[in-house]
Amino acid sequence: MGLLNDTITKITARDDDARARAKARLDQLTMPHWALGRLMDLGMDLAGMTGEMPPPVKRKTIVTMAADHGVAEEGVSLYPQEVTAQMIYNFVNGGAGVNALSSITGARVVVVDMGVKADLGALDGKIVDKKIAPGSSNIAIGPAMSAEEAVRCVEAGIEVALDLAESTDVFGTGDMGIGNTTPSSAIIAAITGKDPGEITGRGTGIDDSQLERKVSVVRKILGVNKPDGGDGMDVLAKVGGFEIGGIAGLALGAASARKPVLVDGFISTAGALIAGALAPRSVDYMIAAHLSVEPGHAAMLEALGKRAFLDMDMRLGEGTGAALAMTLVDAASKVLTDIATFEEAAVSTADK
Amino acid sequence: MGLLNDTITKITARDDDARARAKARLDQLTMPHWALGRLMDLGMDLAGMTGEMPPPVKRKTIVTMAADHGVAEEGVSLYPQEVTAQMIYNFVNGGAGVNALSSITGARVVVVDMGVKADLGALDGKIVDKKIAPGSSNIAIGPAMSAEEAVRCVEAGIEVALDLAESTDVFGTGDMGIGNTTPSSAIIAAITGKDPGEITGRGTGIDDSQLERKVSVVRKILGVNKPDGGDGMDVLAKVGGFEIGGIAGLALGAASARKPVLVDGFISTAGALIAGALAPRSVDYMIAAHLSVEPGHAAMLEALGKRAFLDMDMRLGEGTGAALAMTLVDAASKVLTDIATFEEAAVSTADK
Repeated sequence: MGLLNDTITKITARDDDARARAKARLDQLTMPHWALGRLMDLGMDLAGMTGEMPPPVKRKTIVTMAADHGVAEEGVSLYPQEVTAQMIYNFVNGGAGVNALSSITGARVVVVDMGVKADLGALDGKIVDKKIAPGSSNIAIGPAMSAEEAVRCVEAGIEVALDLAESTDVFGTGDMGIGNTTPSSAIIAAITGKDPGEITGRGTGIDDSQLERKVSVVRKILGVNKPDGGDGMDVLAKVGGFEIGGIAGLALGAASARKPVLVDGFISTAGALIAGALAPRSVDYMIAAHLSVEPGHAAMLEALGKRAFLDMDMRLGEGTGAALAMTLVDAASKVLTDIATFEEAAVSTADK
Repeated sequence: MGLLNDTITKITARDDDARARAKARLDQLTMPHWALGRLMDLGMDLAGMTGEMPPPVKRKTIVTMAADHGVAEEGVSLYPQEVTAQMIYNFVNGGAGVNALSSITGARVVVVDMGVKADLGALDGKIVDKKIAPGSSNIAIGPAMSAEEAVRCVEAGIEVALDLAESTDVFGTGDMGIGNTTPSSAIIAAITGKDPGEITGRGTGIDDSQLERKVSVVRKILGVNKPDGGDGMDVLAKVGGFEIGGIAGLALGAASARKPVLVDGFISTAGALIAGALAPRSVDYMIAAHLSVEPGHAAMLEALGKRAFLDMDMRLGEGTGAALAMTLVDAASKVLTDIATFEEAAVSTADK
């Protein structure tokens, strides 16, 4: 618990002074006041998070956390479990969605094995090995992991963040794990108190009868495990997953290093909810990249007090939403640095 | 009318075959079916518009059309009219919002003087001179321009599109003109039949009493000019503006050359509405970049049958929304070309 507690202690409030300096410049740009709207809000937030004006944003890292889930045996996904490991190879070979979208802004993709149910030794040096166990246990019949494993996976995420922080200005989160929308739905239900029928979605694309079954599985998961919604670590251990804990840790570690974190979609936001339960101030360093098609995502973002930037009907995960939203980080940065003020450009100001 | 009629005749339907080839690839990518949602729709549309798979998207041009408006003397804007010309200098010097946002994707910004009320001779060679007249007439007391000038400004826009088409894969539209939300509001009201109170907004940031006055000016404009909403050229001549006609022409010219056009915000969409009234098929080549804060924008997009890609609380114009949405064009292109299929990556497909 040493690293976890130390990290939480180190998370400070955003820097009001850097934020004010960003606002002061944005207020004077050659345009009607705040006419670039949310790009200007984002620029101000980036300055507050990093404590620098202009905020550094050049070095971008998407961290894709992968793990398997015992609950996959309940038939909650359309895909067989071996797809998790197959997709890791696809990430490493540069052939996945997250690779394609990261390339737009030159973001690096770092893949972390948090608990894939396969021997990934052949990828030694190409992925980060933080494997807690080969897949979490089936949460429809008991807890996902022990309390000790829950701490270990969050701390593993913190370690990844701290290792990468020196070479990263902005983080993005991502996930891979067949079956992982089910624990994510259970996490929202546990933390927000929403009914599973409202916040459980089609994941990889299941049909109506499969969805009905998935909702009943989520209800069963909550009944069997009785997670304490006020205790992030209890929720993670009982109804979470290793990559979700890793994402929570990444968010905590990044916040402790004053690095903005673009939170991807449904599974990443479940990790963000866990992080927020463990350290409410970590939420100040999170940016909601996009709104997922999964119906529970809006409820999660509401719980975090965030409004997503993109609404593209995406539901892939991997970090694809975070990778796409990196373009908005670049845009917000350009607005802060590349637009002339009224004085610089000798443009007449508004009549008062 | 020769160029206008020739151009309209040349606008053909999108290429179903290229579109089908795009869909065939997207259907097989290593992800749950269509999990990148609107990026995949966009990729398919780009293939259909250009007739090529993959569609070329590298060479991007934002065309910022500028003009002044006699109606500015009604006090509908917060800024003095000389700001139009001052901002042209700002565009040329690279200090405006559209320059900053275009730089993210390497888009070129081309500024066109469609009718600025200032001598811009000092910018010879740096902007395109298509000046119809030094500002349109005050539409609160009579038509904006003659029927002949309306044709000339649309044809000027077509000429710009055709001149640039050889060196452009994707166009974006933009506008500059103090007072131009007022004619744009009149255009929506004329074409969609909506009440001016519903679709007139704060433009550069006017307050409640100024807004009330602006709504009454729009009502007066419609009463004085009685535009025929079914006749795009009549609407443009009576209640439009030179840059709005130029944007309409740009959209027609681009469509005739099979080039996709990212339509920026409120004023650009007024131009797009005129283009759609003149040649309904031109709408097939338009992409709605973003949803403006201006309340009438949603009504315009509905009339065009478009859903905006970005919702960033922006209301600057210049082409800033189109420039930002160019990142989505790049993303859609990467999705088409850089993601492996299940077969290529040896990933297991969904259980059927």
